[in-house]
Amino acid sequence: MTLKVHFKPTDIVQLADVKTAAKNIAPFAHRTPVLTCQSLDRLVGHNLFFKCENLQKTGAFKFRGAVNALAQMSPDELAKGVVTHSSGNHAAALARAAQIFGTQAHIVMPSSASVIKRRAVIGYGGRVIECEPNLDSRLEYADRIQAETGATMIPPFNDVRIIAGQGTAALEFLQQVPNLDLMVAPIGGGGLMSGTCVTVSATSRRCRIVGAEPEGADDAFRSKEVRKLLPQTNPRTISDGLLTSMGKLTWPFIRDIVRQIVTVSDEETIAAMKLFLERTKVLMEPSSAVALAAVMSPKLMDLEPDRNIGIIVSGGNVDLDNLPW
Amino acid sequence: MTLKVHFKPTDIVQLADVKTAAKNIAPFAHRTPVLTCQSLDRLVGHNLFFKCENLQKTGAFKFRGAVNALAQMSPDELAKGVVTHSSGNHAAALARAAQIFGTQAHIVMPSSASVIKRRAVIGYGGRVIECEPNLDSRLEYADRIQAETGATMIPPFNDVRIIAGQGTAALEFLQQVPNLDLMVAPIGGGGLMSGTCVTVSATSRRCRIVGAEPEGADDAFRSKEVRKLLPQTNPRTISDGLLTSMGKLTWPFIRDIVRQIVTVSDEETIAAMKLFLERTKVLMEPSSAVALAAVMSPKLMDLEPDRNIGIIVSGGNVDLDNLPW
Repeated sequence: MTLKVHFKPTDIVQLADVKTAAKNIAPFAHRTPVLTCQSLDRLVGHNLFFKCENLQKTGAFKFRGAVNALAQMSPDELAKGVVTHSSGNHAAALARAAQIFGTQAHIVMPSSASVIKRRAVIGYGGRVIECEPNLDSRLEYADRIQAETGATMIPPFNDVRIIAGQGTAALEFLQQVPNLDLMVAPIGGGGLMSGTCVTVSATSRRCRIVGAEPEGADDAFRSKEVRKLLPQTNPRTISDGLLTSMGKLTWPFIRDIVRQIVTVSDEETIAAMKLFLERTKVLMEPSSAVALAAVMSPKLMDLEPDRNIGIIVSGGNVDLDNLPW
Repeated sequence: MTLKVHFKPTDIVQLADVKTAAKNIAPFAHRTPVLTCQSLDRLVGHNLFFKCENLQKTGAFKFRGAVNALAQMSPDELAKGVVTHSSGNHAAALARAAQIFGTQAHIVMPSSASVIKRRAVIGYGGRVIECEPNLDSRLEYADRIQAETGATMIPPFNDVRIIAGQGTAALEFLQQVPNLDLMVAPIGGGGLMSGTCVTVSATSRRCRIVGAEPEGADDAFRSKEVRKLLPQTNPRTISDGLLTSMGKLTWPFIRDIVRQIVTVSDEETIAAMKLFLERTKVLMEPSSAVALAAVMSPKLMDLEPDRNIGIIVSGGNVDLDNLPW
């Protein structure tokens, strides 16, 4: 199955939307720090800059998009609540954003979701509705809640408010480190990457964009090769934030603006996650470590030595009782 | 066995020595960041500030003292090298400092030291000399190297240059967060705590000092109770940086300036280490987690709510293949 998508990226989200999002989230989100590490630089032969979205509120960049979406809702809409289906970082981010905006988040989670992720949603005041661990069940439950409550659906990535919100990470990053030659981010549904594309293509002439994907969930890589949106079927990877297919609104950015997609094995991802923790003392999740693994991969495009490479560390929510090594 | 020590703290190291040390180390050491975390604040009921010496060069505050010691050596002395016996963070710090000052570090390490710690020393250009895993053997080997090479002994804590160097962490900390009500640091040999005492007692009227120790290596706690320096025998704790006894130069600070010593179980230490990693995404070693555990302990002195508590996170060198949970 392939899907034809005729959108141009500039039809979807523009830099002005990202700048508005930056204003919307400023009172609530961290301007996350950029971390550097000389010993990693020596190892890789480039100057690495890590934008620490793992230190963002709720432990992931997802908070940016969720807050931006809620900031654009009317009081009447907010009064009816918000709903999403997610087993991961978007769920926690939406729950926390809803708490801030004084509304109720209904989160449809598969029964297979980890106890830790359920607990995070509940800790932020979210209402968890358990469904079967498949997409049909998730959509059915989410639809039912929308019908019953009038809650607004806030999708995890295929949404212009979400894409604009996620683009604020790259906006800050280029303010903090203007001379980046390359920016690398993971691709799951493509929300972070799309926002990154909007920002980088509009504000930096020199900075190219590379996407990182697990070999076992390489729909973006395969789609880009044939320039057609191929959905991900049967993903297999420890990078649990990158299992989903891209959406119609995110694919055009990956198709037209991303220069290269580097796929990495789970072994490479685990090694990168462990190396980063050992050298920097900072924890990233596997879905983020794919980006560092991509930079260390022989598959990465040829670069002059000592380039300035920015890596968006998308999140740090890890079950410490089940570390992957 | 008890040792009589007649030094007054002010006879040993003064604030001026710490300020000189700060100048000595400024070209080489990181001014480490101070980290805060709202979810930990809510949990504890105070405003916690973490001085991240785990993000210091070589992953621990020990680099401060080592650089300060070498900065005071003459070219002739430097030409003959430096020697110490240590299985831990002081070894790596001295090796790295020696590399910076263009001299050779001879590090006597017990054969029981971990492969990771050996590798760190060798990675920084240090020469590792293996000895039996007991104090007599360590001293014998260190003496022999001193005799053979003329190298200068740089002890891990019982040394005025080391104490002054370690005091620079608290100096920065009070510049970064002037209104601390309490500063908490671990006590092993007492070098970090002594330097902290020099700085805090001379620069803050409101800030009191609390030491943290493992229950299984509680020589400072027991010594303070009887106001006599009791050596540590048969320490048992996972906090491998806190096994040693205090020295004659560090004990007077703990005796006269530290307000309270809180002892914690290894279980409390592990829980604190894990909680910190989960909430902040930052890794500290068990020997540092004792300080957070002390702040969370019911044994901590009574405090008004919402006090400003500074915690010196002394290091982050952890064998990731042997995490304690």
